[in-house]
Amino acid sequence: MRAAVMRGGGLVVDQVPEPVPGAGQILVRTLACGICGSDLHTLTHGDLMVEMSNESARGAGADQPTMKIMDLAHDVVMGHEFAAEVIELGANVGNSAVGDIVVSMPVTFDVGGVHPIGYSNDYPGGYGELMVLSDLLALKVPNGLEARRAALTEPMAVGLHAVNRSQITPAHSAVVLGAGPVGLAVIAALRAVGVELIVAADFSATRRALATTMGAHRVVDPRDEPAIDVWRRLGAKGPLVIFEAVGVPGMLDAAMSDAPAGAQILVVGVCMAPDTVRPMVAIGKELNLQFVLGYDPLEFAESLRRIAEGEVDVAPMITGSVDIDAIPQAFADLADPEAHAKILVEPTT
Amino acid sequence: MRAAVMRGGGLVVDQVPEPVPGAGQILVRTLACGICGSDLHTLTHGDLMVEMSNESARGAGADQPTMKIMDLAHDVVMGHEFAAEVIELGANVGNSAVGDIVVSMPVTFDVGGVHPIGYSNDYPGGYGELMVLSDLLALKVPNGLEARRAALTEPMAVGLHAVNRSQITPAHSAVVLGAGPVGLAVIAALRAVGVELIVAADFSATRRALATTMGAHRVVDPRDEPAIDVWRRLGAKGPLVIFEAVGVPGMLDAAMSDAPAGAQILVVGVCMAPDTVRPMVAIGKELNLQFVLGYDPLEFAESLRRIAEGEVDVAPMITGSVDIDAIPQAFADLADPEAHAKILVEPTT
Repeated sequence: MRAAVMRGGGLVVDQVPEPVPGAGQILVRTLACGICGSDLHTLTHGDLMVEMSNESARGAGADQPTMKIMDLAHDVVMGHEFAAEVIELGANVGNSAVGDIVVSMPVTFDVGGVHPIGYSNDYPGGYGELMVLSDLLALKVPNGLEARRAALTEPMAVGLHAVNRSQITPAHSAVVLGAGPVGLAVIAALRAVGVELIVAADFSATRRALATTMGAHRVVDPRDEPAIDVWRRLGAKGPLVIFEAVGVPGMLDAAMSDAPAGAQILVVGVCMAPDTVRPMVAIGKELNLQFVLGYDPLEFAESLRRIAEGEVDVAPMITGSVDIDAIPQAFADLADPEAHAKILVEPTT
Repeated sequence: MRAAVMRGGGLVVDQVPEPVPGAGQILVRTLACGICGSDLHTLTHGDLMVEMSNESARGAGADQPTMKIMDLAHDVVMGHEFAAEVIELGANVGNSAVGDIVVSMPVTFDVGGVHPIGYSNDYPGGYGELMVLSDLLALKVPNGLEARRAALTEPMAVGLHAVNRSQITPAHSAVVLGAGPVGLAVIAALRAVGVELIVAADFSATRRALATTMGAHRVVDPRDEPAIDVWRRLGAKGPLVIFEAVGVPGMLDAAMSDAPAGAQILVVGVCMAPDTVRPMVAIGKELNLQFVLGYDPLEFAESLRRIAEGEVDVAPMITGSVDIDAIPQAFADLADPEAHAKILVEPTT
């Protein structure tokens, strides 16, 4: 099959072997797959990601299933934000049927353990024409929702989870640092909670406009004024939860420095590099830092439901569509936040 | 009066002006004052402390009272863990009486704002013979409790507050990294909560023995095995809360690296220097970092009550006593954790 392959630190379009569904697995045809900022990071900092995955695995405890970590010396087909059509069933499949349009959390199970789809040498992700998913994790897309919207289930679940893991209530207010796809997903989830003051910051005017569309009450260019100062100027309504959705070195310390006493900082931006912080700043204000990653199966399903029911309109976040051949160019284009939020890979368009 | 003075980055014993109680204030004679690790840090990193205090003040918001920050170019008499005898009353004093033995949170108020006793150019701390306290903050020491034990109210309150700010319940277990006075205070407070597995780590055999005395169920030399691995080996009973009570660069990242998924880390050790962490390690395990500082007035009062009622025996923590002339030598001696936990300054002995 045709796929964009991470190979030797670069992205090349090539033919790769078709995946074969084992017991409890289904073969699907990729309909739409979002390009995630983590994939851009992985292409340049893949070694760090592997190192950190090994670190995490070390702390997981012996009772956890083994997560199979990719080897960058071999091909990886990335892409973990997908909607797909079921085209073939493996043995012992009872949930999915051929022709179903499905989404799935990007993991699959086999006798070797748990494999992260899109960060695996064995299970290609949505930057290829075909994928193998676990039958039991596949969720049928309801309400005739188009695949390109359903593909946003995954990034929107990331925002939903971050908000769920925070202490936020309608009595709090929120500052969202970064209005890329993760920040936008956080904003949508904050609106669903009923938070009445959401201030979002991004250098990009395009992304600030998207932040407003997704539900931010105020947007700010951090070159003009720190977002937290805007929150203060507006009367510092309620206790503050800060969502750090940028994930580059220095952001965490800056958020800690700007934060008011007692604030909680949700670290949802994935900073793969080592970072320097000043603990005294956090100590003096008794800050709480909650690091988050991913979502649980119920949050993933809830994310799909919200999109399918029209409670969250993800269409404005989709700023581009490419076929597999154009994926390397799309990676380059995403370096410019003025032009894009989420680019979808749509192999057959 | 005689005092150990922080001057020009060093500690000198000298005569300094006697403080004068204003309205709502009392003059007290220092009976006992603990030497705190923060004072050792301040002597060497005072500039960083001032910088961080200014940072914190910036985030405090305009509705907070102004905390007057010391100027290291002028004399400071440190010492904020004290018990003292009231010898003179200022105007408008209705709480204290001459002859009372009191403890107090180490802050005082005047028309200029809030002053941290012991980190102030205007209000000398317990390394001098006399102090001025706020009448309303002075707590009379009950039950005939001796002043040298009452002086431990402050450091024990630090441990109580850290435990209160954690999510710990009897169903959790705890790892305490560092069995200096802060770690020991944490251990005592954990026992009061009813935590059934407390593992404490320290390089010093003396401090490990003290940790056991104060209530740790297991102690470990981190050169032999990381404390968190001991917790795992013992069956990883319940979710884990880690108390980082060392406060030197690298400890936070090490704790994050050793922590199991979902752990909370209470940062109670005061690391004044910038520190490097790997956010990905915390993200992958969804760690929660709660930074804490100090205590509130109720916790301070509760700390005194526990000591006075005999619920916590602080006597084993007191490993030395010096007069004012010997304070500089005591600072040097505290560099050796084998010999000491808490040294008390007792000006009149």
